[in-house]
Amino acid sequence: MSEYIGHDKNGICVGIVKKQYFTFAHPPNEMTLESGAKLGPITLAYETYGRLNANKSNAVMIFHALSGSSHAAGYYSKKMESPGWWDNMVGPGKGIETDNYYVICSNIIGSCYGSTGPSSINPRTEKPYALSFPLFTISDIVRAQKKLVDHLGIKKLLCLVGGSIGGMQALEWAVSYPEMVESVIPIASTCKRSALSIGLSEAQRQAIMADPNWNNGDHYSKARPEKGLALARMIGHITYLSEDSMHRKFGRKLHENDAFKYDFSIDFEVEGYLHYQGKKFVDRFDANSYLYITKASDYFDLGEQKGSGSLVKAFSQTSAKFLVVSFSSDWLYPTSQSKEMLKAMKKAGLDVSFCEIETDFGHDSFLLAHKRLTKLIAGFINRVYNGTQSSLENQ
Amino acid sequence: MSEYIGHDKNGICVGIVKKQYFTFAHPPNEMTLESGAKLGPITLAYETYGRLNANKSNAVMIFHALSGSSHAAGYYSKKMESPGWWDNMVGPGKGIETDNYYVICSNIIGSCYGSTGPSSINPRTEKPYALSFPLFTISDIVRAQKKLVDHLGIKKLLCLVGGSIGGMQALEWAVSYPEMVESVIPIASTCKRSALSIGLSEAQRQAIMADPNWNNGDHYSKARPEKGLALARMIGHITYLSEDSMHRKFGRKLHENDAFKYDFSIDFEVEGYLHYQGKKFVDRFDANSYLYITKASDYFDLGEQKGSGSLVKAFSQTSAKFLVVSFSSDWLYPTSQSKEMLKAMKKAGLDVSFCEIETDFGHDSFLLAHKRLTKLIAGFINRVYNGTQSSLENQ
Repeated sequence: MSEYIGHDKNGICVGIVKKQYFTFAHPPNEMTLESGAKLGPITLAYETYGRLNANKSNAVMIFHALSGSSHAAGYYSKKMESPGWWDNMVGPGKGIETDNYYVICSNIIGSCYGSTGPSSINPRTEKPYALSFPLFTISDIVRAQKKLVDHLGIKKLLCLVGGSIGGMQALEWAVSYPEMVESVIPIASTCKRSALSIGLSEAQRQAIMADPNWNNGDHYSKARPEKGLALARMIGHITYLSEDSMHRKFGRKLHENDAFKYDFSIDFEVEGYLHYQGKKFVDRFDANSYLYITKASDYFDLGEQKGSGSLVKAFSQTSAKFLVVSFSSDWLYPTSQSKEMLKAMKKAGLDVSFCEIETDFGHDSFLLAHKRLTKLIAGFINRVYNGTQSSLENQ
Repeated sequence: MSEYIGHDKNGICVGIVKKQYFTFAHPPNEMTLESGAKLGPITLAYETYGRLNANKSNAVMIFHALSGSSHAAGYYSKKMESPGWWDNMVGPGKGIETDNYYVICSNIIGSCYGSTGPSSINPRTEKPYALSFPLFTISDIVRAQKKLVDHLGIKKLLCLVGGSIGGMQALEWAVSYPEMVESVIPIASTCKRSALSIGLSEAQRQAIMADPNWNNGDHYSKARPEKGLALARMIGHITYLSEDSMHRKFGRKLHENDAFKYDFSIDFEVEGYLHYQGKKFVDRFDANSYLYITKASDYFDLGEQKGSGSLVKAFSQTSAKFLVVSFSSDWLYPTSQSKEMLKAMKKAGLDVSFCEIETDFGHDSFLLAHKRLTKLIAGFINRVYNGTQSSLENQ
């Protein structure tokens, strides 16, 4: 669904793309969430890039993380203001090659970029759901995505790719719909959040909820909890970086001054950067979505939920091929957690490759145009694709 | 100044102790701070344990960290409700042996445990200083402590011991008053805060300042910024632990429930713990003190300030013996930062020992009764003491 305009600022890109919508679970056929609550109607905003081939065997689904959207690649207009969040990875000649593959990316439920979430209007009340929106899990996110894939008429996804919370969705897909998944690339992700990352996640939620403008979630026609959301983003942003990358980028450089100011404004460059990140974020994200999505990621425990306590059991339900990628300086979902999933996958007899990429960019590395990551992803998807094509030919 | 009562809950302790006060810098002789601002009169609350020997050669000064006080050991009353913050290290038969050494601990300026700080009454206005209190540095803290040591009639301190921000004070002492310092033990400390730790520090300050009850620092006769301070403590507390210790202590255990609650209250044990730590803290600490002391620690850069850009130059100003201690799982002031100071000390030709203690307790390890730490400290101080005694005998 993309019109090639030839070039992005640095080279070729998927061009002008259009956000699309799919609505399902119309009452009285609402979706029952893992909590038991019902949600419907549900709209998913999604985008696709490239063309689905005749036998529908070239679909690659990518999953966004906490603050992402369906807009993974290209531009919404010729103004080319800001490309999709993974434009460096998705496009013609890029890691996920849109000349060969049909790429789907949908905004998750609970988010604020077109899919049904707490900021959406509840048709029953004609007001935003706010906190009446039910809490959901990664499994709920994935069950909604499954409806979209069915709607697109795709029976099998060639590859699922996602970083961070996006990786959780890819893993959940593999064990929930094994018949639909050929291969999976979880990047900088985990099968369950650690106590450390849950603690950091709760601190971010508390930052939002302590803001009086949050108003127990009811702030859509009022002043928004900007201070709280900005602080949550500041904390989050620190967890996406690493000690080394922050040292290299900021060190102890001062911000717009030659000497300490000796007040409580900004002294250091790193403070200025975090304030800027916080401020920028409140213009584009909903505070309630932040609460719901972080909670969904805290709940995620693939072994507990899909393997009755055993991660090996969970992975035994799939025969997908896996490429697990971690980053050496990621302290939010460190390599040790990728190795834990790798171990369980191997015990489950799966075909797994693993790569820890040496980088000091921390958790955020999955969003950067890292050459090694690009090569790894391209090589893996091509191998899987060629494998499926030859087995189709042999049928 | 301690009356032995024989035993603490686990064994012997320094007994009942009394907080004492020393006031100086009476106007018009205020102390000029590093910022150029003037502060006075200044009161320091302090405690001493053990007895100063005849030649005053057995004084050990210990320095508290962000939220500590002069109350390092013993009890204020026979109720023995809660001992000093380093009672496991300071006392008869303990790492810092009060049968042999005279131990001094003073509350730093800017704090809220008896020393002059933002919550103190400004005698000029008869109101709390609040934000009219000048911002200060580690150097200012140390210059005030120097006045106390002069007042106690001590010409040379046998050993300076401190963890975290306490270690910064010990390091600052060594290069600011080299003639007064025999030896130094900086534990889990650094010669300058990294961009990562400044970022985390700023997030904690923002948590306080975003609380409307903070009221630009003016909240002493009003509702206090409890939510903000609790959140700051939550964030801080996460940085004092480690991924492994949090995993061992909490993992993904649920808090007072068998299943997810699917709301924004507390689901996980780690969340409950952090909330508890936050709540407990607001009863005992002043939000403004938190701002001022974190800022002082952010400013600290020993090489920049005392060596005109060179840490080696800074250390060249002292001939003190050093024992540098770090903890393998400390990610706030990691071993790499201790090694950096070690390297500079060696280049400056100093007598240095270094030990990285393997532990998963993170930054907080310096407060725990770690056997290895206790032995290291005891052994080092005894060796230094024996050395000074034999050189005194040879004079």
